[in-house]
Amino acid sequence: MTSLSDLPIRDDLRGLTPYGAPQAHVRVELNVNENTHPVPQQVIAEIMSRIAQALTTINRYPDREFTELRASLAQYLGHGLEIENIWAANGSNEVIQHVLQAFGGPGRSVLAFPPTYSMHPIIAAATGTQWLTAERDEGFYISPETAVAAIRAHTPDVTFFCAPNNPTGTPVSLETITAAYDATKGIVFVDEAYVEFAPTSHGTALSLLQGRPRLIVSRTMSKAFAFAGARVGYLAADPAVVDALRLVRLPYHLSALTQAAAIGALAHTPAMLAMVDDIKTQRDRLVHELAVLGFTPYESSANFVLFGNVADPHAVFEKLLSQGIIIRDIWMPHHLRVTAGTQAETTEFLTAIAALDAAQR
Amino acid sequence: MTSLSDLPIRDDLRGLTPYGAPQAHVRVELNVNENTHPVPQQVIAEIMSRIAQALTTINRYPDREFTELRASLAQYLGHGLEIENIWAANGSNEVIQHVLQAFGGPGRSVLAFPPTYSMHPIIAAATGTQWLTAERDEGFYISPETAVAAIRAHTPDVTFFCAPNNPTGTPVSLETITAAYDATKGIVFVDEAYVEFAPTSHGTALSLLQGRPRLIVSRTMSKAFAFAGARVGYLAADPAVVDALRLVRLPYHLSALTQAAAIGALAHTPAMLAMVDDIKTQRDRLVHELAVLGFTPYESSANFVLFGNVADPHAVFEKLLSQGIIIRDIWMPHHLRVTAGTQAETTEFLTAIAALDAAQR
Repeated sequence: MTSLSDLPIRDDLRGLTPYGAPQAHVRVELNVNENTHPVPQQVIAEIMSRIAQALTTINRYPDREFTELRASLAQYLGHGLEIENIWAANGSNEVIQHVLQAFGGPGRSVLAFPPTYSMHPIIAAATGTQWLTAERDEGFYISPETAVAAIRAHTPDVTFFCAPNNPTGTPVSLETITAAYDATKGIVFVDEAYVEFAPTSHGTALSLLQGRPRLIVSRTMSKAFAFAGARVGYLAADPAVVDALRLVRLPYHLSALTQAAAIGALAHTPAMLAMVDDIKTQRDRLVHELAVLGFTPYESSANFVLFGNVADPHAVFEKLLSQGIIIRDIWMPHHLRVTAGTQAETTEFLTAIAALDAAQR
Repeated sequence: MTSLSDLPIRDDLRGLTPYGAPQAHVRVELNVNENTHPVPQQVIAEIMSRIAQALTTINRYPDREFTELRASLAQYLGHGLEIENIWAANGSNEVIQHVLQAFGGPGRSVLAFPPTYSMHPIIAAATGTQWLTAERDEGFYISPETAVAAIRAHTPDVTFFCAPNNPTGTPVSLETITAAYDATKGIVFVDEAYVEFAPTSHGTALSLLQGRPRLIVSRTMSKAFAFAGARVGYLAADPAVVDALRLVRLPYHLSALTQAAAIGALAHTPAMLAMVDDIKTQRDRLVHELAVLGFTPYESSANFVLFGNVADPHAVFEKLLSQGIIIRDIWMPHHLRVTAGTQAETTEFLTAIAALDAAQR
């Protein structure tokens, strides 16, 4: 049998294993920060009707410019954004890939502040972009001074912020982002995948776009919009940035079905976002109750909670899994991450972890 | 206003313009080798039913391994292929990108035989793979000797064949592919996007996969399956090749909707392929009638025809477009390319081009 090492694969890929969050299907799935609430029936009906329409011309290539989808996204985002400011792709992973293909790549670098979204370094590697890292402050925060010092030390071509950050849930202040922007001549990329779960008082980097053509703010429909299966990530930026991304995207990268489904969901934004408040309630409950149990949860602005002071994270992960509850072992010593589910799912998780032997916790 | 050149974009992208086959919507669209027959009603019904099912869990990430889709594709392809032999992505463009990310990339090269699919050099550039070219024989054929000589001269990491070739329609013999395989230590990639329109006597490179772990055969659902809007490309190869592609794909790259739609279409393969014979009839009619009109059409094994001896291709293109008929100006002197449409569309095109002034033709 031929093995991977028998093939003329690139040297830098030899010995790697693919990204692999477990896809075990169990009763309570709180491991990949999905929105555990299904899409409401009336929204499904609208999506089905738009997909039926799209299928009548599915033999034709889709709108390469996905103009109607970009209009829907611009309207959702507000902040005076228009079609020309919007780009989208098959999940925010592909959005990030487009950005690094255009502004990173061989001979260029991206600076990030780990621990952060685990796909960021993988996409950097896939695009040949050098991955540079800098330390966070206490409690995983990044002060303006910390961001500026890191940028001065590394002079990266692209600087990544994940706001709120995954896997820690930590917000990033708008002051930090503007200070970073002023300190670099490169791109500042703010990944706001979880921003809909943050207090509105934190603001959004969308409000900083005006007059900052090197700033990019990405979003996703996977989280607040409960649309992870549809694969729709997007970003807002200066129209010149969108022009740059057109140079690296594969033509017709967004299928007619993806476009139809996303437009349908965005037409029902209030219904799609109705569960966000419930999820925030469960997240705050997780923070509170995990502390009561003796763990050290971090304040979170996202739909998940990182908690420390876990004696044996692998053992806790396995013990919960054996009871049909999956959370995320992020291989950070003494830490685990759990997604805020429905009230019932959150209760199941909290009851199960509370019942573990104190030695295991 | 910020322009692209004001941004810190990669130097190799400066001054480029994005890929852009015209998306003018006119009465008769014969420009991008789509299947102009809509998907049959009973297949749409099956797809809708599977999409309705997929929407019930669209809040969850899709099957990252798209196992059911790969099983359907393996069954369609036959030749003893199994799930482990199959890979798929959002259009064959993304399949090609995955292959070049794994086996090409910076410091590596791909050899091709122009004129060929216009996306091949674009994807090579996007992945940092050096693009090497070699001459074809008379009539756009590639003999085994020609292929072997080019491989010996260039020692590429990847060799591309497009069989049948786009934009010429020329077949590539299995002898050429096996000779190329034996002459290289690199990957041999055979793009069979149009193979369902070829005479079955030409065979398929799928029959060569056994015992050739460096051979990759790609297909698409965009052409014979009339599914261009759904963006489903795929390939068959040794399971070790599929392992390599897992290292470079973005996780969850195929949406749950894409998977559901493609599985639905493949469940009705005979209905989906029913129009292939009609299209072949129209293609052969194009070859015959364009010759009668004084053009020099090339023998085609695909769903389109390249024809030469056009006095002024741009003028003919514009004249037809002004009558609501779009074909493809491929910027090859004195040549144009036309897709075989329905009988009515093909008649419209032939009537219109016959009516042009002899001087323009």
